[in-house]
Amino acid sequence: MAVPDLQEAARLYETVFGMTRGLHRELPEHGVEVLFLHLPGTDLELLAPLGGDSPLTKFLESHGAGMHHLCYEVDDIYAALADCSRAGLELVDRAPRPGAEGKLVAFIKPTLGVLIELQQA
Amino acid sequence: MAVPDLQEAARLYETVFGMTRGLHRELPEHGVEVLFLHLPGTDLELLAPLGGDSPLTKFLESHGAGMHHLCYEVDDIYAALADCSRAGLELVDRAPRPGAEGKLVAFIKPTLGVLIELQQA
Repeated sequence: MAVPDLQEAARLYETVFGMTRGLHRELPEHGVEVLFLHLPGTDLELLAPLGGDSPLTKFLESHGAGMHHLCYEVDDIYAALADCSRAGLELVDRAPRPGAEGKLVAFIKPTLGVLIELQQA
Repeated sequence: MAVPDLQEAARLYETVFGMTRGLHRELPEHGVEVLFLHLPGTDLELLAPLGGDSPLTKFLESHGAGMHHLCYEVDDIYAALADCSRAGLELVDRAPRPGAEGKLVAFIKPTLGVLIELQQA
């Protein structure tokens, strides 16, 4: 979820929706800070701009706050990425790279309107 | 997820992402047909327009395919709805009503850019 203010959003998700805060990290190389909120069976990741020229600022300006991407945990990210490529999906990352949680991730261009992240389980 | 063609989208999610098809229902009163896809810990609901004057056609024309809303399963939908209202969130449904799966649901207006559905577990 892209949000303009991470702490304000986190308060809402904590107090109203009863979620538990997880990892909070600044990723200056991507111009974002992220905060994970735990739910049974899934996690919700809040993304907020970090620094003046964050690419997320542009996203927020054109789309407003809202869903940014969907992340699927996969058993074998190399095999999953090859499957996606073979199926004709357009890859953002041709090879996995470390993501916000330190696990290997790879992005796939919007598919049926949804930007997709794969993450090694 | 709002999609223009339910079966085409379902094929992608089944074959590339390995999801299992669940309930498929036409909801003519809402101008949509829905198909649930199962994942461990969560479900993905595909929504496609049904009939010429579906409100979802408008959504697809202005937003394109993509994420439509996020549904949280709650233990007590009456208590959850009251909590949301007390926290200042704007309700679409002032009282729960039967949803696509026959369980009680209630929608909450976009909050931080996300349309929210509550569903009785």
